[in-house]
Amino acid sequence: MPDAPPRAVLSPAFRLVFRLEIANRPGMFAHVATVVGERGCSLGAIDLVEATPAVHVRDVTVDCPDEAIGAQLQDDLRRIDGVRVRNVSDRAFLMHLGGKIETKGRVSVRTRDDLSLVYTPGVARISRAIAEDPDKVWRLTIRQNSVAVVTDGSAVLGLGNIGPEAALPVMEGKALLFADLAAITAFPLCLATHDPDEIVRTVENVAPVFGGINLEDIAAPACFVVERKLRERLDIPVFHDDQHGTAIVVLAGLRNAAAVVARELADLRIVIAGAGAAGIATARLLRLAGVRDIMLCDRHGIVHGKRDDLNEEKRDVVRVLGTERRGSLEDALAGANVFIGLSGPRILSRGALRTMGRPRIVFALANPDPEIDPLDAAPDVDVLATGRS
Amino acid sequence: MPDAPPRAVLSPAFRLVFRLEIANRPGMFAHVATVVGERGCSLGAIDLVEATPAVHVRDVTVDCPDEAIGAQLQDDLRRIDGVRVRNVSDRAFLMHLGGKIETKGRVSVRTRDDLSLVYTPGVARISRAIAEDPDKVWRLTIRQNSVAVVTDGSAVLGLGNIGPEAALPVMEGKALLFADLAAITAFPLCLATHDPDEIVRTVENVAPVFGGINLEDIAAPACFVVERKLRERLDIPVFHDDQHGTAIVVLAGLRNAAAVVARELADLRIVIAGAGAAGIATARLLRLAGVRDIMLCDRHGIVHGKRDDLNEEKRDVVRVLGTERRGSLEDALAGANVFIGLSGPRILSRGALRTMGRPRIVFALANPDPEIDPLDAAPDVDVLATGRS
Repeated sequence: MPDAPPRAVLSPAFRLVFRLEIANRPGMFAHVATVVGERGCSLGAIDLVEATPAVHVRDVTVDCPDEAIGAQLQDDLRRIDGVRVRNVSDRAFLMHLGGKIETKGRVSVRTRDDLSLVYTPGVARISRAIAEDPDKVWRLTIRQNSVAVVTDGSAVLGLGNIGPEAALPVMEGKALLFADLAAITAFPLCLATHDPDEIVRTVENVAPVFGGINLEDIAAPACFVVERKLRERLDIPVFHDDQHGTAIVVLAGLRNAAAVVARELADLRIVIAGAGAAGIATARLLRLAGVRDIMLCDRHGIVHGKRDDLNEEKRDVVRVLGTERRGSLEDALAGANVFIGLSGPRILSRGALRTMGRPRIVFALANPDPEIDPLDAAPDVDVLATGRS
Repeated sequence: MPDAPPRAVLSPAFRLVFRLEIANRPGMFAHVATVVGERGCSLGAIDLVEATPAVHVRDVTVDCPDEAIGAQLQDDLRRIDGVRVRNVSDRAFLMHLGGKIETKGRVSVRTRDDLSLVYTPGVARISRAIAEDPDKVWRLTIRQNSVAVVTDGSAVLGLGNIGPEAALPVMEGKALLFADLAAITAFPLCLATHDPDEIVRTVENVAPVFGGINLEDIAAPACFVVERKLRERLDIPVFHDDQHGTAIVVLAGLRNAAAVVARELADLRIVIAGAGAAGIATARLLRLAGVRDIMLCDRHGIVHGKRDDLNEEKRDVVRVLGTERRGSLEDALAGANVFIGLSGPRILSRGALRTMGRPRIVFALANPDPEIDPLDAAPDVDVLATGRS
């Protein structure tokens, strides 16, 4: 048995339900609970499924820090004398079976009468009305409330280019949030192309059905091209979640963080790690919000005007920021007040963190694994935020 | 006042609800009811909304044969002394406000716990699982049960090329039928292009989200190109509703009609009016089902091998059918047993109908207005079908 890990599981991202046959004798469940605790996992619901004189069958819900520890716990449980693991189910997988969204009718079709109004022949009058006055599409169809969630699967969460099929659960999740939190009809479109012009053409072609386009998890710099061209060509809003969504949320969070530490937002020295779509858009929005000292860093360090390896978007944002300092991310961090992580897992060390000035604000937003473990960073910062739900 | 039209309204495609203030004196409602009847409209629900000593306010539901007669009835009602038309609402339009379908969650998101499983970080594990084993997309996403309803709006019902926006109510209606009758998640994609290659590319690009493609209301001959190329390039079923849907339903109906008239399907002489997608596919399927004598007609008459104005699809089907006769639709009909109308409104006269042989079967399927009014044809036929619901 390993030493117990030092902390509780904060996020139920890896939750298992074990169906255990436990011999009916004193102390047996305590044994199970001890094994769970020793692996650093948290016990959740414990439901009795069957009870005989010989065994109790229980469904035991356990939150594990990660998949590997879940597998180890399963082995541990199998090794307990008097316990049989009948079945293990993984709640995240169970919730995804068959997908997370569905299309439903907003009107009921119970009679032939209904049918003749919602479909032919009645629907022909609605189509004619729109053909005569195209603006009526906004009143008489889903278009007034529909959003396409568009990706090419090239930069999905922190997982990189995993392709359109593997991106679908994330896009379904986004559509689910639109539906559940805002009653908006969103539909995922995961595209089988990474070519920016092809993405643009495809979205233009499907645009008549949608009232807005939500671009999601498309890698930089293609995402900038796609967004710019779609804005030029479409007459509906084009929102790039990685850029605009992230930048808006970071600005909102940072305003509040500044209030917490009783400082003006504009006076904070800010370092942004990650010069992809999110980092660049966030830098631009923070500048618009009045922040004077913003340094953007990529994997080669501070993004400044003398570097010859910058793409067009990085060159543009450097002009806006006026960055002259050179050096590494660590150089940038020394004395800074704010770290905004929009990059990848574990790139911020506790050592570098401690070189930052005070007040000290850390937004470690890489997904699913942040730039620094929030629990590692917590003792050394004034305000901490992370992107995991 | 016109003479009363000779028949009741069979389809409620044009249903109005009049809110009438009717003076509270004997015989007033009889007056209203008489006016409705004289226009050939049918009274439906009559609800009392308010009653004062001076007036009764009633919502009066009326089915009208068509839009023009509805407007005339409205004028008639306004002219009645003691009646004020407060408001007229059109049930078909009311049912379409805001669209007929919506996206809903299949899982509930009530807690932060739920959120972390259906979205980041939990969803990352699902995406990783699909990236490692692409076949898992069929278990862990909507793809197992999702259909794209794809059109370019070029041949919508019998309305012709009305474009993607005006086609949307029809495609929403189809998606609604998928959802309501089969619990399938269908989503309308009305494309802003008529170019077959562009349609093919767009559908290929969105295909990762869908388990099947339902092509709908795309004009011939582009629809044949689109369907053939998509079948070649995609590994999911491609169904062209106008071809395959129509052909299947016609064959099923014709088998039953043959049973009703106690004849073998194969022995019936069949004339198909309309050599578009539906007509050609129906001719092919009926031939596969064993029918020997099938004549396909377009607006220039019988489609035969000596004509020099045939597109590739018509030439192909003529080879399959072996048509040698020449002449007009009327020539083809003389002595035939079956008329299958897949063309446009009112192209079959009662005179031509009466030249057909016995048994005499008429399927007048043009939408929304059939080749012959079913009530006109009924006295002269053994079996009658129409495409209106």
